[in-house]
Parts: sequence; structure tokens; C-alpha cells
Amino acid sequence: MNKLSITHNDGIATVMINNPPVNVLTIDLINEVNALVLSLKDDRDTKVVVFKSCHEAFFLAHLDLNVINGTQGGQAASIEFNHMIANIKAMKQISVAVVDGVARGGGNEFVMACDLAYATENAAFAQPEVHVNIPTGGQGAVQFARRMGKNKALQALLLGNDFTAQQAETLNIITQFVPKAEMESFLTQVLGVISQLEIRDIVMYKEIIAASITDEQAGAELELRYFLERAKENKTQAIIGAFLKHGGQTEREAKDMPGIFADTATELGK
Amino acid sequence: MNKLSITHNDGIATVMINNPPVNVLTIDLINEVNALVLSLKDDRDTKVVVFKSCHEAFFLAHLDLNVINGTQGGQAASIEFNHMIANIKAMKQISVAVVDGVARGGGNEFVMACDLAYATENAAFAQPEVHVNIPTGGQGAVQFARRMGKNKALQALLLGNDFTAQQAETLNIITQFVPKAEMESFLTQVLGVISQLEIRDIVMYKEIIAASITDEQAGAELELRYFLERAKENKTQAIIGAFLKHGGQTEREAKDMPGIFADTATELGK
Amino acid sequence: MNKLSITHNDGIATVMINNPPVNVLTIDLINEVNALVLSLKDDRDTKVVVFKSCHEAFFLAHLDLNVINGTQGGQAASIEFNHMIANIKAMKQISVAVVDGVARGGGNEFVMACDLAYATENAAFAQPEVHVNIPTGGQGAVQFARRMGKNKALQALLLGNDFTAQQAETLNIITQFVPKAEMESFLTQVLGVISQLEIRDIVMYKEIIAASITDEQAGAELELRYFLERAKENKTQAIIGAFLKHGGQTEREAKDMPGIFADTATELGK
Repeated sequence: MNKLSITHNDGIATVMINNPPVNVLTIDLINEVNALVLSLKDDRDTKVVVFKSCHEAFFLAHLDLNVINGTQGGQAASIEFNHMIANIKAMKQISVAVVDGVARGGGNEFVMACDLAYATENAAFAQPEVHVNIPTGGQGAVQFARRMGKNKALQALLLGNDFTAQQAETLNIITQFVPKAEMESFLTQVLGVISQLEIRDIVMYKEIIAASITDEQAGAELELRYFLERAKENKTQAIIGAFLKHGGQTEREAKDMPGIFADTATELGK
Repeated sequence: MNKLSITHNDGIATVMINNPPVNVLTIDLINEVNALVLSLKDDRDTKVVVFKSCHEAFFLAHLDLNVINGTQGGQAASIEFNHMIANIKAMKQISVAVVDGVARGGGNEFVMACDLAYATENAAFAQPEVHVNIPTGGQGAVQFARRMGKNKALQALLLGNDFTAQQAETLNIITQFVPKAEMESFLTQVLGVISQLEIRDIVMYKEIIAASITDEQAGAELELRYFLERAKENKTQAIIGAFLKHGGQTEREAKDMPGIFADTATELGK
Repeated sequence: MNKLSITHNDGIATVMINNPPVNVLTIDLINEVNALVLSLKDDRDTKVVVFKSCHEAFFLAHLDLNVINGTQGGQAASIEFNHMIANIKAMKQISVAVVDGVARGGGNEFVMACDLAYATENAAFAQPEVHVNIPTGGQGAVQFARRMGKNKALQALLLGNDFTAQQAETLNIITQFVPKAEMESFLTQVLGVISQLEIRDIVMYKEIIAASITDEQAGAELELRYFLERAKENKTQAIIGAFLKHGGQTEREAKDMPGIFADTATELGK
């Protein structure tokens, strides 16, 4: 890979995006992302994939304007970009966009394709495509509609204006605004928890959530089925035993739930 | 009932939950809640059912960990818990959770099963089940997905972290944060209004809302059918007559709508 | 038209509503709105339709109480009101409610039927119908359910209380709170952008949004189809060419995207 440099550490893959001059989503970059996602398909050790940018001002600029045309190559590249969005959404792992710069058009669609997105005071999000005579092409309008409702989505898509990270959090474009000075410790804490899970835990909740959004009753049935199966496991019994031994179901839960979980982990690690 | 003490007053049933030491959802408590809900099935005088805790620090701790296993009894109790959630959701009355302590796991699922939920600065909400190797089992993941969207739900379910009442309001886990010092007067005001309605008013709006969330057009048709039927009633004509007599459709509506409704009620009470 | 005065200016139709004494939705006013919407059906020059009130305190009071009854005329008028809501929602143009006063009942339903709604510190929104023994009749409950979720909708419909513009923005009743002192410049800016689009741009995004809310996958497919078609157009190539010439895909995008768009427009206008 030329434009992505990937480091693995304790269940977390960190992907640095470097496509000068401004991290445009060129077909080369798109192909590398697709290859990366494919390589993770059967990887059960990697739980979290974090995307960051090497560029100071841009997370991802947008889809390469040179492929937005009627040529066979342009149309194929546009479809490949669209598939990349679908591929990211279908990952087993938790995908995380850490946004400290501009993410417009395809860049913002990349952010919304990730499971989690954290952004700083330097971030800007927008879908300004209509001013180039096209609609969004990587589910930008789809996601805006589903995340902020018809009216706010229509305004955002017709104006194409930038949103700050705080606005983006309120509108559900991203998961959370995190000040840049706090980002690394925030990521250490949050991703540290998630990377200790099994990949099947992540897949389970992704499935339940997807089912629930489409059909509340179907989601509830899937959730209960998983619950009853998982309750039977020895692992569950071991955790519950240790949890109860260290103050589960007592007053300690009110003020020190993290302490009970820590003692439970220590007990099980013996 | 051993664990629930119920008082009735002017259309409002207040249910105090008392299951020492920390209000765990044991099978006994679950059975009492199910019996209560069943007893209200044909009760048209009770409009509102308010759930409060006798415990200073806990609203409801969570489902009894001793039933989360592969035994026949454990699986049956877990299913009974799941039914309790469905039963609360299917009530004719308005169910209200007043949360002044911890509500995690099944406790938080109980809160979300209620129609309305008000919580104080002492409240904490979480679905930490994944750290016990299980998913939520009472629609916790289902409700998180539908209320806060895929991304924020995924974060909350994988971290299992606590939310304050203010955060819970923003994320639609509860209806509203209410400071503890104001809770009683708030409840008197809000529940005073709702308890004056007919039970069929409550059922009507629950039906329209449920239909609308599944299918906007179906909701709109159901709403119009109710509207045209209700418009014909003598009760409607009596209220409209008194309302118009006391300043309805005049400037008084701008600044004193509550006054018009009060005068209307007085007129009709003559 | 007697109750509506309409002025056209550069793609924007401004509709002043004047139905003394308090802008009640009488059958005459309803008929005029329906006639207006019908007249715009094939109008591709008008992109934006802005509704404002001539009354200082009322945007629209509510549906005329004199038609809410079991008479043939009353039922027909109620149905006509319901159709008016559906007609506004089906407009090709962007409909905008500018609310500087009271909008309750049918008045609030009118606001929610519009694509965009901006409101000032003088605005008040409510659906108090249940206290007149009827449900909402113009999708008030439908829209509340879909915009704020089951729980907050139920509270709002059973209480019938007023919401401020800030609350209404948070609850998705309106698009945005705008202080009265800033409203005119805000509208000039926002509607200035939208009115420069083609009517087919607006229709395209309305279609993608509607499809996406019902079915995420269907929305994504429709979006991609539009994207690939639009990418082929000469207009797209001309804009992209000028955009790239003036700093598109360079560092300039980070800090001066509006400047690139402005230079692009100037280039194309030569």
C-alpha cells in the first residue's frame, strides 16, 4: 500500500491516510481502502480499525473530480467509490474515523460509513455536491435523511454548508465532538475497552442494531435469541461468579461499578 | 404483593418498588410487575401508572444475575423478564418511570419500556451487558438503536458506560431531566393533566404514534379516521362551544390559551 | 386571492397570509392555499415558496373550530384541510414557513408540512387538540412521532403544551431558531442559495430523501443512479473544469471553499 500505512497494536489497526496534496479520494486510494477492508474479512484479532489523516488540514477532501464524468473509466471509478462506502459499512470490525480537518463530499461520506466518528475543533463536514450539478454518490443524502430527518437534511443538502464537529454531533453526522487536546487519551480509553471484546460481540451488536432499525419486533426477537444462547456459556457463568464475589448486586454497584468490573477481570485473570 | 406497594389517587396509581438490598429484578419482582400490569388491563379509571423506587441509590439495579444461565429455570426467568418489558410497553395506561438512582441493564430497559421517564441528577443509565458476555435481553439494544441511531447506540452498547439524566434526555433514553428539587411539583402538574383525559384518548394517541413510526401514510390515515369520528361527538361540540364563548379564535389565544381552557372547563362544569 | 398576497422575485414566491382576526384556517383560506399549490405544479421558475403572516401575534391560529363537527360541510372542510397538508408536502418547490407568532393545532401542522421552517423568539408551537376531545387531523401526531420519537411525542400530544422555537428546533418540529433581528438577512442568504438551483435539483433530493427514510438500500440505489446520470452532463463538466481551474482539489479548499465556488460562478458567467 502506497497511500495507507497501517500499524497493528493490541487488536487495534491504525490506518494513516496519505494522498497528497489534499487527500482526495482518487481511484488509487479507493482501491487501497477496498483492499484493506477485504484483508480484514477473516481477521478475528483486529477488533478496531482507526482511520486518521497525515494531512494537517484535510481528513479526506472528496471524491476525485476527474472521475465524475460520463467516460467508462469515470463511471467505473464512481461505482468503485460507492462500493467502498458499502464495504466499510459491512466490516466486522469497529471502524473509527478520527477527523481533525476537512471532510466534504466523499470525505464526509467516508466518515458516515464508519461505525464511530470523533472530530475536533478543526473539523468541517459538508455535502456540497449539488453546486457541482450532481447529488451525493456515497450515501451522503441517504445518511443525512436517516440521521437528521427530512427537513434538516434537505437544508444541509441544498445549501451544502460546512458543519462544525459540535453541530455534526447534534445532527448525528458524527458520534462525538472531542477537543483535539483530549483526543488521544479519549481514544486510548474508548478503543481500549472495545478492543478487549471478541469480534463476535461486535458482530452481534451490529446485527441486532441493523435488525432493530428496520423492524423493532425482529430486532427484539434476535436480541432475545442471542441472550438465551450466550447465557448458557461457561464464559458467562465465570464472569457472573466473579462479579457476584466482588460486590455485584450489592450497594457497591451504585458508586463503583468500574471497580467491580476491574476486580472481576483480575479474578478471572488469576 | 410483597415488593410493590400501590396507592391509587384520582386516576394515578403510584407503584413503590422495594426489593432489598438493591432492587434487583428477581423473578419474584418480575412476577409482581406482570401481575400488576395484568390487573390494569380493563381498568379504565387508572390513567397513569407511576413507578418509583424505595431505595435511595437504585431505581432498579438490573436483571438478577442468578437467572442468567443455561438452566431451565434461568432461561424461563429470562424469558419472563423479556415478557415483562413487552407487557409494560403494551399497557393502555401511561406508564411513567421516575428515576432518582441507578438504572442499568434490565433497570434501564424497564425505564425505556415506560411511556414517559423523568430522571434527576442522581440517576445513571447504562447497558453494560456485553462485559458479562451477553447482549441486552429486554430490548436495550433495540431501543438504543431506534432512539439514538446506529452509531451512538453502538458506542453505548460496546462501552456500557453510564449516562447522566441530561445525556439520557438528549439521547432519547428518557423523556426529560427534572432536578430532584422540582420533581414532585413537575409530576403534579404533568400527571394532573394526563389523568384528566379518558383512557381512550391515551389509547388513541398510542395507536396513532405506533402506526406512524412504522408507516407514515398508515399513521396519517388512522389519525384522520379518528379525527372525523371524534369531531361528531356531542362532547366535542360542547367543548368547542364553551371554548369559542371564552375567547377561542380571538386575540386571547395568543397570550392566554391556558385561561381559555380553564374558563372552558368551568363553563362545562356548571 | 383574498387572504393570500403573493409576490414573485428571482425564483422566490413570498406568500403573505392575512385572514383576520387571528389567521384561523377557515375553509376559504384552505381553498386559497390549495389553489396556490396547484398553480405552482408546473412552475419551474419558482424554486422557493415562503409563507409569512401579516398578523403580529399569529402565524396561523389553527383549523376553524366551526368546521370540527359531524355535519357534511364540517367533515368535508376537515378533509380539505387534511388534503392541504398533503398538497404542501407534495410540492416540487421548497416550501418555507417563517414563524414569528403562534402556530398551534392546524397552524403547527402547516409548519411541519413545509420543507423548511424558521422561527423567532415570538413563536409558539403546540398540538393541544386532545383537550378539545379530538386528535390532530393534519398529521400533527404523525409528524411528532416521526420527528421526536414515541416518548417525547406522547408527552407533547397528551399535554398539548407550547414549545418555544429553540425547543422546536431540538425536537425537529422546525429546522432552525433564528432571532427576529437576524431573520431577514438569514432568509436572504439561505433562500438566495436555494433559488439559484434548478427545480429538478430540489425534486431530486426530495425523492432521494423520501426513499432513504423508507428504505436505506432503496435510497442508496436511487442516489447512485442520479449520480451516474448527472455526472455525464455537459453542465457538470463545465462546473468541474472551472472549479479545478480556481483551486479545487488544492489547499484552497481548506480555508476558502466559498471563494472557489464564487470564482467558478464568475468563470462560467463569462
